[in-house]
Amino acid sequence: MKEIAVGLLGFGTVGTGVAKLLIENQSLIQSRVGAKLVLRRIADIDIERDRGIRIEKGVLTTDVESVVDDPDIDIVLEMIGGEDIAKDLILRAIRCGKQVVTANKALLANQGKTIFKEAAEKGVDVAFEASVGGCMPIIKSLREALVGNRIQSMIGILNGTCNYIFTKITDEGLHFEAALEDAKQKGFAEADPALDIEGVDTAHKLAILTSLAYGVEIQLSDIYIEGISRITPLDIEFAQQFGYKIKLLAISKDLGSSIEARVHPTMIPFNNPLSNVSGTLNAITVAGDAVGDVMLYGHGAGMMPTASAVISDTVDIARNLISGSVGRIPLLSFQMDRIRKTRILHIGEICTQYYLRFFAIDRPGVLSKVSGVLGDNNISIKSVHQKGRKTDGAVPVVMVTHVASESSVKKALSEIRSLDVVSGEPLLIRIEEEENDEE
Amino acid sequence: MKEIAVGLLGFGTVGTGVAKLLIENQSLIQSRVGAKLVLRRIADIDIERDRGIRIEKGVLTTDVESVVDDPDIDIVLEMIGGEDIAKDLILRAIRCGKQVVTANKALLANQGKTIFKEAAEKGVDVAFEASVGGCMPIIKSLREALVGNRIQSMIGILNGTCNYIFTKITDEGLHFEAALEDAKQKGFAEADPALDIEGVDTAHKLAILTSLAYGVEIQLSDIYIEGISRITPLDIEFAQQFGYKIKLLAISKDLGSSIEARVHPTMIPFNNPLSNVSGTLNAITVAGDAVGDVMLYGHGAGMMPTASAVISDTVDIARNLISGSVGRIPLLSFQMDRIRKTRILHIGEICTQYYLRFFAIDRPGVLSKVSGVLGDNNISIKSVHQKGRKTDGAVPVVMVTHVASESSVKKALSEIRSLDVVSGEPLLIRIEEEENDEE
Repeated sequence: MKEIAVGLLGFGTVGTGVAKLLIENQSLIQSRVGAKLVLRRIADIDIERDRGIRIEKGVLTTDVESVVDDPDIDIVLEMIGGEDIAKDLILRAIRCGKQVVTANKALLANQGKTIFKEAAEKGVDVAFEASVGGCMPIIKSLREALVGNRIQSMIGILNGTCNYIFTKITDEGLHFEAALEDAKQKGFAEADPALDIEGVDTAHKLAILTSLAYGVEIQLSDIYIEGISRITPLDIEFAQQFGYKIKLLAISKDLGSSIEARVHPTMIPFNNPLSNVSGTLNAITVAGDAVGDVMLYGHGAGMMPTASAVISDTVDIARNLISGSVGRIPLLSFQMDRIRKTRILHIGEICTQYYLRFFAIDRPGVLSKVSGVLGDNNISIKSVHQKGRKTDGAVPVVMVTHVASESSVKKALSEIRSLDVVSGEPLLIRIEEEENDEE
Repeated sequence: MKEIAVGLLGFGTVGTGVAKLLIENQSLIQSRVGAKLVLRRIADIDIERDRGIRIEKGVLTTDVESVVDDPDIDIVLEMIGGEDIAKDLILRAIRCGKQVVTANKALLANQGKTIFKEAAEKGVDVAFEASVGGCMPIIKSLREALVGNRIQSMIGILNGTCNYIFTKITDEGLHFEAALEDAKQKGFAEADPALDIEGVDTAHKLAILTSLAYGVEIQLSDIYIEGISRITPLDIEFAQQFGYKIKLLAISKDLGSSIEARVHPTMIPFNNPLSNVSGTLNAITVAGDAVGDVMLYGHGAGMMPTASAVISDTVDIARNLISGSVGRIPLLSFQMDRIRKTRILHIGEICTQYYLRFFAIDRPGVLSKVSGVLGDNNISIKSVHQKGRKTDGAVPVVMVTHVASESSVKKALSEIRSLDVVSGEPLLIRIEEEENDEE
C-alpha cells in the first residue's frame, strides 16, 4: 500500500489534534483514501511535554528545518502560527517541492500573495481550509461545491470569542468587560483578546473568503473593521425590542463593478438563521445565483474541529499525490490569470439600514430637532424608541432608519452630536436585513 | 483551451436548470476550471417546448442512446429520473467508458450496487451530489471534508414537501389534508405525493448517506419508514407545550457493531437548530468524533439549487479528466474492499424517548391504569399532560417517556389500547434529544 509521509510543524493545540487524528483514525482514513498517511516527523520547541498521544521514537524533533528539508516528507503541515517563522518555513517547503497545509489566517490575509505566487510557480498545492471557520467546509464549498454559482454575498459569524461574549451579554445582561472576563476564564478568549474583539481575526478570514468567492485581489487594509467593545446591554435590549440580535458579522458582497467587505457589530432579524447561532459556534451564509442561500454551521475553532479541517486538506493533497493530480484545483479558486483587481468600497460608500442610539435631554422638541437633522440628510426613519424618563435629564433615544448612505448617516450623526439637547457620543450599529418594497 | 464535452439526458426541470447554468455561467466556470465545459447534446422526448434558453442548433435530439454512445462526449448527466430507462442508460454510458452524473436517488437507493460495481470495474466516476439535499454539499462533506472523522450520526430534514406541510400545520393550525392541498397548489407537492409524505423519498436519501458515512452496505428495506399523515394539529400543539417541534427526520447512527437507520416524524427540542428549519428548506446535522456537530442548511430541491449540485459534480469530474485522476475518490467514500456488511437494527431494537397520545374516558383512575401498564413494561414517565375536559367522555392524554426500548413501548401501547378506559388508536412519536444524566 502506498504511503504518504506527513511532517508536522508545531505541536501546540491544533498540532496535537492533528497528530491525534492521524494516529488514532489512521486505519479509518486509510480505508477511505486507499493509502497510508504516516506522521513521519513532528517539530516543536517543546518536545518533552506529554500531550497524551503515543508518538513513536524518532518522530519528535526541535529542528523545524530538518522537517521541511527532509526529502522523504510529502506534505508539510504548518501549525505554528505567527507570521515570520511560519512564512519562511512555508516558502522553504514550497521551494523543496513539498505540498503545504496551513491554518494560518493572519499569514494568508497579510502575505498570501507571496505564498500563492511561489506555490503556483513551483506547481505545488497549498491548502488552508482550517484557516476559516474550523470544521465548516466553507473553503471547499467555495472552491468546489458552489463552483457553478456566481457568488453574490457572504455573511458569517467567524469568531467564537465575540459570539460567546454577545451571547453572554444577551442571555445574562452582563456588561462587555464582565462577559470578556468570563470568556477568558472559560478559555474562550486569549489573555490578549485584542485580535478577536477588535474584529481583526474576523477580517483575516473575510479577506481569504472574499478572494476565493469572487476571484478578486483584496488586502486586509481594504476591509472596514469595527470591534465589539462599545456595544452595551442597553443596545442588545433595544435590538430585541426591534426584533434583532447583535452579532459580529463578516459581510462581503459582489456588486458587479465593486466589492463590499466589512466587519462590524450588526443587527440581524430573528428570522435570519444566523441570529440563533450561540456561544462559540460559527456559521456562514453564502448566497449564489443558483443555490439561493446555503448555510454552514459548526465549531469554528478548538483542537479537534480545526484538526479535522487540516486532515481534510491533507487527504485532498494525498489524493492528488496518489493520482498524480497536484494543482487539480487552482489555489485561490480561480485560475491565476483570471483573478481581477476591483474596487473595494470605502465604508462611507455603503448603503444599509442603521440603528442610531444617543442620550438626549428629556424635554419637548428633542425628537423634532434630531429627526430634522436626519431628514435634512435624506435619511428616512423607520421607528423611534425612547427608554423611560430620567429625572436627571439624559435618556437613551434610539432610531432605526430605512436604507441610507453611510456618509449621510455619519454627517447627520456629527450634526446631532453638536446639538445642545444631545449628550455624549452617539452609537451607530448597521442592520443587515432585506428591506421590503412596501415599506 | 481544453474542452470537456457534456451530454444531458432529460430536459425537464432539473435538466433545464443544468443547461441554463452550463450556458449562462460558462465563462465563470471556465475561469475557475481552466477548461471549457461544452454542452454538446441534450436528449429528451420533447425537444419542441421553449425552456427559455438559447440552445445551439444540432444540440437537441430525441435519441437518448445517440448521446450515450457518442464517442465525443466525456460526461453524461442523467436527469431523466425513474428507474428502468435511467439505469439502462447509465450502465450503457459506463460501458462506453463515460463518466456519469446523476440526481436519481430512487435508482441509487434501490439499484446502486449494480451501478457502482460496474463503474468500479470500468474505472469511471459516478457522482451523485444532487441526489441528496439539493445544493447542500452533504455528499462532498462525507466523502471529503469529514474524511478524518469517524461519523457517529446524521440527522436530517431531507424532504421539502413534508417540511412545508409541518410548517403549515404548526404556523396555521391546518389539518394534514389541508396543508397537503396547499403544498400541491404551490407546486411543493406532486400530484401523487405518496413517495414524499410516506417518507420513502427521505429513506432513499438516508440509504445513500448511510452507506457513504459509515462504509456499510444498506438496502432500502433495512430502513424503518413511517410517513407523516397521522400527525394532527393537536400533536403539534402538545409538542410545543413540551418544548418540541415535529419534523420528518432521517436518522442514522453508527453504534459500532450495528447501525440504526430510520425515517419517521420526530420531536426535537427548540434548541436543536433543525427545529428552526422551515418551509421547503432542508438541513442535516452530522456528528463526527473530531468535529462534534456540523450542520448544512439550504434549498433541498428546485431547479437551480439541484442544478448547482449537478454542476459541482460535473466540474469535479471535469477536473479529474483534465488532471488524469478519474477515480481519485472512491465512489462510495470507502475503498470498495473496505465496505462492511453490518447489522441494521430492527425498529423494535432501538431505544429512545417517546411521546404517546391516546384518548381516554375522563374519569378517575385512568392515569393510574395507563401508567401502571407503562411501569410494568419498564417505561419511566417524564411528564403527563391532559388536554381540557370533554363532556362526552374522551379527552386526549399525552405522556412523554424517558429513554425506553421501542419493543417495550409497543407492547405497552397494545395493552393500553385494550384498556376499557381508552378509545381509538394510540399514537407514538419518537423524540430525538440528549437526555441529561440528572433527570
